[in-house]
Amino acid sequence: MNLGRLNHVGVATPSIERSVETYRTLLGATAVGEPFDLPAQGVRVCFVDAPNTQVELIQPLDEKSPIAGFLAKNPAGGQHHLCFEVPDIQAAVAELEERGATVLGEPRIGAHGTPIVFVHPRNFGGVLVELMEEPKGDH
Amino acid sequence: MNLGRLNHVGVATPSIERSVETYRTLLGATAVGEPFDLPAQGVRVCFVDAPNTQVELIQPLDEKSPIAGFLAKNPAGGQHHLCFEVPDIQAAVAELEERGATVLGEPRIGAHGTPIVFVHPRNFGGVLVELMEEPKGDH
Repeated sequence: MNLGRLNHVGVATPSIERSVETYRTLLGATAVGEPFDLPAQGVRVCFVDAPNTQVELIQPLDEKSPIAGFLAKNPAGGQHHLCFEVPDIQAAVAELEERGATVLGEPRIGAHGTPIVFVHPRNFGGVLVELMEEPKGDH
Repeated sequence: MNLGRLNHVGVATPSIERSVETYRTLLGATAVGEPFDLPAQGVRVCFVDAPNTQVELIQPLDEKSPIAGFLAKNPAGGQHHLCFEVPDIQAAVAELEERGATVLGEPRIGAHGTPIVFVHPRNFGGVLVELMEEPKGDH
């Protein structure tokens, strides 16, 4: 594969509402989506658009949320993952596994309605990488 | 101001060479710049191009580097900052300070040759934000 678009930067936050207010007030964000729940992933998310990519604000839905552990270590929030687009998620998973990377679980539907997977941060120098199949309608 | 382009995501690493190899092998990065030193900031950096933005790999030049402390806490490396473009760095600093944000130091020349500043992570929910004056030639 070739390195694809950075679809978004995932940022964990204890409060999407407060974070949205911050991005509006301090950075002048105007294109802010409606927050919505992804119960299968235990999170509530909200996309803030920059001209070339997005910030995905992520808040835990409950204490079992994978984000809850992150916030326990980083109570103020912080950068959580980088999401790059790939043309085909199954091909990407096969390629990564062939090269020894640890893909976390099976592809599932992500916040943009296309299949996604996460790759273990130990494979990327401490960075949690999400791969997202690019939306077909946009290409 | 309006939220500008995400110029790059800053990723701290103990070894730019190993990180470049990872991005090449696992994600298919092909557009990788030459690493270069920024002695005034105590770092060595290398830009990896995605189609819409860049990953800035950052390695400490010595033990006094601001990145050294980050790596002491995160020995494998990890996401370090988000860099958004602004049209005018002085105007951005004035606006941020007027709104109560803590701008860290005076504007200085960054890795792309234009003035940059960092804003304290406590102002952005734990995210270290860099603002970079957009290169005039590109606009």
